[in-house]
Amino acid sequence: MKQLKSHKSFNGKTEFYEHDSKQTGTPMKFSVYLPDTTVKGGLIWLSGLTCNEENFITKAGAQKYLSDRGLAIICPDTSPRGLDLPQEHDDYDFGSGAGFYIDAQTEGYSKHYKMESYIADEILNLFNNEFNKSGKTALFGHSMGGHGALTLGLKYPERFTSVSAFSPITNPVNCQWGQKAFAGYLGDDKDEWQKHDATCLIESGKSHPRPFLIEQGLDDNFYPDQLLTENFEKACGSSQQEVIINKRPGFDHSYYFISTFVEDHIRFHDEFLNS
Amino acid sequence: MKQLKSHKSFNGKTEFYEHDSKQTGTPMKFSVYLPDTTVKGGLIWLSGLTCNEENFITKAGAQKYLSDRGLAIICPDTSPRGLDLPQEHDDYDFGSGAGFYIDAQTEGYSKHYKMESYIADEILNLFNNEFNKSGKTALFGHSMGGHGALTLGLKYPERFTSVSAFSPITNPVNCQWGQKAFAGYLGDDKDEWQKHDATCLIESGKSHPRPFLIEQGLDDNFYPDQLLTENFEKACGSSQQEVIINKRPGFDHSYYFISTFVEDHIRFHDEFLNS
Repeated sequence: MKQLKSHKSFNGKTEFYEHDSKQTGTPMKFSVYLPDTTVKGGLIWLSGLTCNEENFITKAGAQKYLSDRGLAIICPDTSPRGLDLPQEHDDYDFGSGAGFYIDAQTEGYSKHYKMESYIADEILNLFNNEFNKSGKTALFGHSMGGHGALTLGLKYPERFTSVSAFSPITNPVNCQWGQKAFAGYLGDDKDEWQKHDATCLIESGKSHPRPFLIEQGLDDNFYPDQLLTENFEKACGSSQQEVIINKRPGFDHSYYFISTFVEDHIRFHDEFLNS
Repeated sequence: MKQLKSHKSFNGKTEFYEHDSKQTGTPMKFSVYLPDTTVKGGLIWLSGLTCNEENFITKAGAQKYLSDRGLAIICPDTSPRGLDLPQEHDDYDFGSGAGFYIDAQTEGYSKHYKMESYIADEILNLFNNEFNKSGKTALFGHSMGGHGALTLGLKYPERFTSVSAFSPITNPVNCQWGQKAFAGYLGDDKDEWQKHDATCLIESGKSHPRPFLIEQGLDDNFYPDQLLTENFEKACGSSQQEVIINKRPGFDHSYYFISTFVEDHIRFHDEFLNS
């Protein structure tokens, strides 16, 4: 693990690292914020399509709230980089910058695009070993990363104390982004697709012991077609999964939306991290 | 004036515009934040070398504090764009992205690089006519933009209620960045250079009725050689100009530094804007 940059910010440090990932077989970058005080809890942030380890840490304005509460965060990249797989760099919504937080099963991709194992095993362990000695970790993300947070939270409820999402893709098997990504990473077996879809996971009986918190802007260009928030809302309503969905008039899909409500989400996670 | 983007953020809007500048003779972009409530005061932010109208508004995390206080902000670009003057695009510290907030007198540049008049006349008037009906405007900036804030504050004290700066270039006639820029924009007459140097302006008897607030990181790569903070501190000490200089151990020249202390600077300006 190599430190690339370190910047003092508030009462702590914003830092950038690169490490050799066992899961992806490539060098992977991530950013962290580390308070100067004893770390009381950790968060993993999962970014959306086209993003990398920089977007959240430079644009969300989270450092103040993390610093005030003694929380650490890690923001991984959204896919392996530096490869040249078939179609990997053709579109913004598949391949590089678009790993979708699943372990690919298709030829070529299955060796490297293991983003589920990368986040839920490798990054979680690295974060807890190196930075977050509290051992408690919350998970949240945006758009494709919201899909990642909800599905990994449902697959591994014991690993993440609480889960939240901004503008998540909640039912990928029924939207264009999800169908394209799942076909490319998982192949044609649609039974397999359902194992990686938050709405289908809820319908199959999976749950997380803590309520999910979801923030959704109502002027979001991708709402509802790509996000299908109401499908997830309905599935939770018919199950034991508690969910709080805040629908926010006027807000869009951008980091201006995220920065407005990031304090609320950090406060939400802090309560569970410190309970 | 054409609106390019509008994003709801906190209780207001972050927006991007383009207008045809009379001073530069080119289309110029700027960003604004506008609270939903009556505007109680305005700020102009001047960015540093290589920056444009986006850096502050996406990275500083200022919107929350502006929203809470009912303040508007405008963030202009740092130079004309779309031209092809001699050496304009060769280096990061001269020409495009490096207008230095002075009116150029050299051939070619004198027609377009009129960044002093652009900020202190055109942008100030546009801001107060279109967005900041309070009519009161504070001025602050970073690095080259800190030089801009201090010098324009000293040249036009009646136009800006208060002035502050992060990591400002305070004595450009004595540092490499300033010497290169002033030679390129003003020519070889060093008496002329002194009229655009904050330290020289203080030494010549100029002042602003309000104290200046300066934030300076002590792990800043450009401190002290390019910034020469102590020259300005000494000049103010020998004059009637009040200045508060906060030297911050561990902080560097980045937006991580700015975001840490932007709330303090907004509070500082708010007191004068609303007094």
